[in-house]
Amino acid sequence: MELQLKKSAVSRSWILLEQDGSGAILDVDKYAIMRMVDIHARDLRILDPLLSYPSTILGREKVIVLNLEHIKAIITAEKVFVRDPADDDVVPIVEELRRRLPKSSGDEEPCAQGGGQGEDNEFPFEFRALEVALEAICSFLDARTIELETAAYPALDELTSQISSRNLDRVRKLKSAMTRLTNRVQKIRDELENLLDDDDDMADLYLSKKLANLSSPASSFGAHPNWLLSSPNPDSKIHGSSKASTATSLQVENDVEELEMLLEAYFTQIDGTLNKLNTLREYIDDTEDYINIQLDSHRNQLIQLELFLSSGTVCLSIFSLVAAIFGMNIPYTWKDGHGYMFKWVVMVGGMVCASLFLSIVTYARRKGLVGS
Amino acid sequence: MELQLKKSAVSRSWILLEQDGSGAILDVDKYAIMRMVDIHARDLRILDPLLSYPSTILGREKVIVLNLEHIKAIITAEKVFVRDPADDDVVPIVEELRRRLPKSSGDEEPCAQGGGQGEDNEFPFEFRALEVALEAICSFLDARTIELETAAYPALDELTSQISSRNLDRVRKLKSAMTRLTNRVQKIRDELENLLDDDDDMADLYLSKKLANLSSPASSFGAHPNWLLSSPNPDSKIHGSSKASTATSLQVENDVEELEMLLEAYFTQIDGTLNKLNTLREYIDDTEDYINIQLDSHRNQLIQLELFLSSGTVCLSIFSLVAAIFGMNIPYTWKDGHGYMFKWVVMVGGMVCASLFLSIVTYARRKGLVGS
Amino acid sequence: MELQLKKSAVSRSWILLEQDGSGAILDVDKYAIMRMVDIHARDLRILDPLLSYPSTILGREKVIVLNLEHIKAIITAEKVFVRDPADDDVVPIVEELRRRLPKSSGDEEPCAQGGGQGEDNEFPFEFRALEVALEAICSFLDARTIELETAAYPALDELTSQISSRNLDRVRKLKSAMTRLTNRVQKIRDELENLLDDDDDMADLYLSKKLANLSSPASSFGAHPNWLLSSPNPDSKIHGSSKASTATSLQVENDVEELEMLLEAYFTQIDGTLNKLNTLREYIDDTEDYINIQLDSHRNQLIQLELFLSSGTVCLSIFSLVAAIFGMNIPYTWKDGHGYMFKWVVMVGGMVCASLFLSIVTYARRKGLVGS
Amino acid sequence: MELQLKKSAVSRSWILLEQDGSGAILDVDKYAIMRMVDIHARDLRILDPLLSYPSTILGREKVIVLNLEHIKAIITAEKVFVRDPADDDVVPIVEELRRRLPKSSGDEEPCAQGGGQGEDNEFPFEFRALEVALEAICSFLDARTIELETAAYPALDELTSQISSRNLDRVRKLKSAMTRLTNRVQKIRDELENLLDDDDDMADLYLSKKLANLSSPASSFGAHPNWLLSSPNPDSKIHGSSKASTATSLQVENDVEELEMLLEAYFTQIDGTLNKLNTLREYIDDTEDYINIQLDSHRNQLIQLELFLSSGTVCLSIFSLVAAIFGMNIPYTWKDGHGYMFKWVVMVGGMVCASLFLSIVTYARRKGLVGS
Amino acid sequence: MELQLKKSAVSRSWILLEQDGSGAILDVDKYAIMRMVDIHARDLRILDPLLSYPSTILGREKVIVLNLEHIKAIITAEKVFVRDPADDDVVPIVEELRRRLPKSSGDEEPCAQGGGQGEDNEFPFEFRALEVALEAICSFLDARTIELETAAYPALDELTSQISSRNLDRVRKLKSAMTRLTNRVQKIRDELENLLDDDDDMADLYLSKKLANLSSPASSFGAHPNWLLSSPNPDSKIHGSSKASTATSLQVENDVEELEMLLEAYFTQIDGTLNKLNTLREYIDDTEDYINIQLDSHRNQLIQLELFLSSGTVCLSIFSLVAAIFGMNIPYTWKDGHGYMFKWVVMVGGMVCASLFLSIVTYARRKGLVGS
Repeated sequence: MELQLKKSAVSRSWILLEQDGSGAILDVDKYAIMRMVDIHARDLRILDPLLSYPSTILGREKVIVLNLEHIKAIITAEKVFVRDPADDDVVPIVEELRRRLPKSSGDEEPCAQGGGQGEDNEFPFEFRALEVALEAICSFLDARTIELETAAYPALDELTSQISSRNLDRVRKLKSAMTRLTNRVQKIRDELENLLDDDDDMADLYLSKKLANLSSPASSFGAHPNWLLSSPNPDSKIHGSSKASTATSLQVENDVEELEMLLEAYFTQIDGTLNKLNTLREYIDDTEDYINIQLDSHRNQLIQLELFLSSGTVCLSIFSLVAAIFGMNIPYTWKDGHGYMFKWVVMVGGMVCASLFLSIVTYARRKGLVGS
Repeated sequence: MELQLKKSAVSRSWILLEQDGSGAILDVDKYAIMRMVDIHARDLRILDPLLSYPSTILGREKVIVLNLEHIKAIITAEKVFVRDPADDDVVPIVEELRRRLPKSSGDEEPCAQGGGQGEDNEFPFEFRALEVALEAICSFLDARTIELETAAYPALDELTSQISSRNLDRVRKLKSAMTRLTNRVQKIRDELENLLDDDDDMADLYLSKKLANLSSPASSFGAHPNWLLSSPNPDSKIHGSSKASTATSLQVENDVEELEMLLEAYFTQIDGTLNKLNTLREYIDDTEDYINIQLDSHRNQLIQLELFLSSGTVCLSIFSLVAAIFGMNIPYTWKDGHGYMFKWVVMVGGMVCASLFLSIVTYARRKGLVGS
Repeated sequence: MELQLKKSAVSRSWILLEQDGSGAILDVDKYAIMRMVDIHARDLRILDPLLSYPSTILGREKVIVLNLEHIKAIITAEKVFVRDPADDDVVPIVEELRRRLPKSSGDEEPCAQGGGQGEDNEFPFEFRALEVALEAICSFLDARTIELETAAYPALDELTSQISSRNLDRVRKLKSAMTRLTNRVQKIRDELENLLDDDDDMADLYLSKKLANLSSPASSFGAHPNWLLSSPNPDSKIHGSSKASTATSLQVENDVEELEMLLEAYFTQIDGTLNKLNTLREYIDDTEDYINIQLDSHRNQLIQLELFLSSGTVCLSIFSLVAAIFGMNIPYTWKDGHGYMFKWVVMVGGMVCASLFLSIVTYARRKGLVGS
Repeated sequence: MELQLKKSAVSRSWILLEQDGSGAILDVDKYAIMRMVDIHARDLRILDPLLSYPSTILGREKVIVLNLEHIKAIITAEKVFVRDPADDDVVPIVEELRRRLPKSSGDEEPCAQGGGQGEDNEFPFEFRALEVALEAICSFLDARTIELETAAYPALDELTSQISSRNLDRVRKLKSAMTRLTNRVQKIRDELENLLDDDDDMADLYLSKKLANLSSPASSFGAHPNWLLSSPNPDSKIHGSSKASTATSLQVENDVEELEMLLEAYFTQIDGTLNKLNTLREYIDDTEDYINIQLDSHRNQLIQLELFLSSGTVCLSIFSLVAAIFGMNIPYTWKDGHGYMFKWVVMVGGMVCASLFLSIVTYARRKGLVGS
Repeated sequence: MELQLKKSAVSRSWILLEQDGSGAILDVDKYAIMRMVDIHARDLRILDPLLSYPSTILGREKVIVLNLEHIKAIITAEKVFVRDPADDDVVPIVEELRRRLPKSSGDEEPCAQGGGQGEDNEFPFEFRALEVALEAICSFLDARTIELETAAYPALDELTSQISSRNLDRVRKLKSAMTRLTNRVQKIRDELENLLDDDDDMADLYLSKKLANLSSPASSFGAHPNWLLSSPNPDSKIHGSSKASTATSLQVENDVEELEMLLEAYFTQIDGTLNKLNTLREYIDDTEDYINIQLDSHRNQLIQLELFLSSGTVCLSIFSLVAAIFGMNIPYTWKDGHGYMFKWVVMVGGMVCASLFLSIVTYARRKGLVGS
């Protein structure tokens, strides 16, 4: 397995981190990567930044393929390949990997099972790399969530107090951003849950142990005859289906224990982030329902007021009609010499109009159309 | 395992309760806690009140990590650490723990399997602590639910009878509170269900038994050869996946029995609380649907009334127009000497207007626009 | 196990039914019940009518705890305790129990496995009691559902034909009742489904067999060495997790067969009831959608008619304005001696108004605002 | 097992089909059926047409109880009982059964396991009957679905182009019919899926094999000692829970293979029908959303046009007011001898009104209220 | 198994591809196909283009039945039958099959289990065919999704800026297309997930291995006595239920490994496509919600403006009424000789109207009906 550094036209840079934390920038195409590590083209395509695959953690025979948002990495039992190390979001992760990877001494042996003396530093190489990636992605998504919350809650309250087109558009953009973020968080949460649900998938990630088993099949032969049966293909990977083997299952169980504790902690963390997003979503949905009812109720009140004005217009029209009739230039007999006429017309007309107005309003109120 | 009491700048107080119910306030940071109990930093972070993780019950090798809302505790086979003992909600729980923890005599031995003579008082130490915490959180959430119900139902009925902005806002706040409470109850219910679904997770919580097995592996050697295989790592923890082992499974089953009965009872209780909240949610949703239809129907009635008024206005306008035409100061031949004219114009105009009004209303009624 | 009849202040009456159908009213508190049967306080609380827990069927070591709506009972291998026997809904169930319980002769022995000669009458005591309870609750809920359907469908059709506030309120109340009933039916259906999904839960309900096994462990010793292992705790209860044991599983399976057939029949029945309720719910939802669109469409038609009237008003206003202008008392040169003037003004004004009205209507029609 | 033909008052006719295809009409009550076949009253109730249970396929010890919509049948290893053979939908099924049942020669022996020479014609009797029933119900439901699609798509398109009360009502009725049909198809699909998910449930349907095993337990004794253990109750039925037995599972698997292929084909068919219905449902939902937005948008346009008219009315009112003021019969000094007055009033008034109208429209346009 | 080329009236052409890539066009009916390969009529019906079944991958004893959208194929261990090779979408797939199928040399032997030297080229014949089909369908659906996205996002943004009937209709058509595409992608994703979830279903697809086992049962006899038990029916197919056999399961596991890696890669790809569609769906839904609120808010603003105009109309009506009253031709005593009268009436009337208008507006503003 020799390193080959090729300069390809398309900038497809990787960084290769060794067990001692030293790193080397590789600017190679995918065929070079496939020559360096034992990975299939199909699996490598998942890391292609152009194709935007969802987040995935795949355990293969000799590698872990990690596609967690911007963190695209290949983890072997001895090396870590990280894609796009110059990306702003990836730089701190590479730094962290450099810092944490070399901390272990003697991790090449399968993880000791005796007692609990400082268990966290005894993680094999591949799990230290995995933990750095999980920690980075969990913190990254939680930070995005908090940013979104900081923007969304005031925007929603503002929208509630004033429904303007500008506020609506702002909330729409925030909601859209939230939906996208929720999908991303959900995807990683589901991936962790699937891993936790299947012991065999987790066992697949124990690259060091599989390597050790392959190199020393004889040592385990005498002690565990059952393990021997499965040793030709130790990378048994089963997707979500339960499996039962009498004695070896107990064996496998032990192996999985420490990885499970590692994944569980980050599962709880990402689950908390998802919870926040769901609460935000429900707040937005409730606010939308509220705005809808509010707008409807507002409109009804507007129409009620307009109804009053219409009633007034009708009454005034009647009075105007009367005045117009008397304003016609058609001569009539009693037109002259009726000095009291003007007074009576104005008073009777006004009273009729007012009573009509009141009766309309009373009718509307009695029918429950106009509130008290 | 020595106690270290450090005064840190940040107030991160814990209370340590021993088996005899005696307690000591610890004001220590997380590193001190990690030195006192065998817990990983990742797991301790779940109890961090600043990070607001969802409710979790984690069974680790030697501890149970308990994060149930305000109850944040670490339970070992011999001690209980409770976070923030000065918190108003936590004080009664500490009191209850003090009262109930020492009740057992001779619980250090693995729980007796012979017969059912007074089974509930024979719980091992860690389950007595767990039961106090579960009882407290179930009662706490049920009380919150009842408070919410007491406030919500009258508010909804009031909103139904009068849709004002103030009532709407009140219901919106209650709905938001309900959503948050539902999430919290759901989270605890799910956690209990997950525990109940997985015997191995439950077996992980038997701290006393695991401790006893570790200290006396020889005694169980002869009787149970299968158990020996798994004894190096007795804290086998499997997340949601089924497992099958021929003989030992029957063994494990017995162990899990009493914890299952304990958890089942609180699961039923929290499920009842969740049921109440779901009923409330559906009542709110139904009320919102009702209000929406009500507002729509109300608006249509308002517009129907306005339609009547508009029809009236049009008819009056026509009559006014006629009057205005005759009121023009343009001289015309038949303007004079037609005494009957005025009478005719008024009568014919009035009848035409009235018949126009009636025909509009009849048209609307025949088209189904205006109800009977 | 002696009967103690205490008169407590709070009326907490139970009825105790023996194997021969004879019953005795007990007016005792929960501590007396706990002394009579081997039941935990936690489990007894589930039957508390004040706490309104959801429907549950719990298999314990020596009892079945039954909380099915109003039917709150404790079933042992030899006795049945029913809560509140004076309740109107419970009286017929007690009658039925009295009638059916004594029908069996020789049920104390474990249920015979040989052949199918009249299998239904050979049910052990606890299953006869369980069947009576299930039959009662299924019929009860189905009757409630039919009542609801009888009330709901006409109410919905009436609402469709006339959307009045009274009809809306009636449908809202029916919908709310339906939601509550659905929850109750769903709860019992889920409980039955959970039981059916888990053979071990079902095996837990075989109280007679467990009793028989306990009293004669020696007889089964030679034949089934595997069974012996699990005999100390034969009431193994596993919640929803799969379990696999080589030989004994076949054994357990046989036991569970007849209970499964019993539960399956009632599961189908309650599932049918739930189906009816879901159909009703969908009918209500469809009707609501329909009403919403109907109201909206109605409103648009109202506004279209109002638009016609408004157009008319505008045109009349223009004509009136012309008339008013000629009605001004400002002297003008051509005011006199133009006899043809009046005719022209009226005719031209009228034609201009009519053409304006027609052009507005044509514009609206061409824009698709006013339907054909 | 003797046939008893009783004429009961209530017409509860059945047809009994023998292995040779010959049939006999039975007009018997349920007690007669129970005497003829080994079926429990609980299970027989599922076939009661009055109680309208959901679709079910139940495997019992000696019978298959089949309730697929109108096809209500009891299948034993040698006979088929079909309910209501005079029903129009059932007649062709009985014909088909008559035609297909006798095609097998020598099916009484357990189905041969050697090779695949013409596997489809070697189905045991009960599976031939089951296949006829499944084929009939799948075709029946698919035909109903196609009828519904043929009616629904044009109705929806018509509704989109014209939202009338009649079209709305028609779509509502179609939607309601679709919901009911979807429920029925879903129910059968779920029943088939449940069967396919559980090998033990499928094994229960092998009535011929169970019969053969019962009659010759000795022959299988030597070869399969494990099978012997389970032979006393070969009709082991487990609902949805996984099971693992070392050697016999492989045995059972073989048995289930051909039934699984049979069920899978009809599952795909009914799944395709369900797909069509779901596509239709989504088309309806999308259309409803579209209509809602369309109606809202339409209304806004109507109100915009009305706003123009209202603006016009206000401007005309102002002009009319001016004219009316000058039309007052109050003498004023400049009233006479100002010939230019009339011209000025009309022109200035007209210009003021027009500019007011334009400013209102410009304001509305600038606020985004009136579209371009 | 002889090839029979029949020319049937109905054009039902197939292409038959051999192991060396050579192909022959067959224009045969389904009976000819059934004679050529060992496939049941039920399964062949799934490939019928007229019946439009959902996407399915079925593993049968000697064939894989593949119905992936337009790709309808039957794969045996030595041949591939593809339906409608003249279809525009199918032509490139046939080309690809021709190119890739012959690449293997010596695939008839069961796939080697030793080491990982170039694993991807050692796929057996049936998997090479399967991979071509999966790759084609994944690329096809992803291309359709990208086309849809390209059309949908601009259309939605345009709709947001202008809600016209044309834009609405366009979005409705796009949404409908999206729903249909989502269903198709979902169906294939589910089919792949189901396959991945069940090891036995995957094992069924190893046609070459099954063929090899059948032809040489003796060779595997000595090495794997457990396999022998299951060899009579190696095509054991279990739908979604877990299965556990002690030793053979480990054996089967190895076999499944490479197929699982193949399927997993395409599962991730199709899952990414589904993710895009779901994001699009949520964007459409959010946009619809936004448009609804926008339209409502717009309408309220329109009505607010109309309210202003109505208020103005009422005030002008009052003033007009006053003028009309004074314009009546009824003689009155103070009608003459009150020169100041005209001025006063105009001024007082104007002030009263203006103050009325302002009070109405102030009232509406104070009630929150008219925004600031």
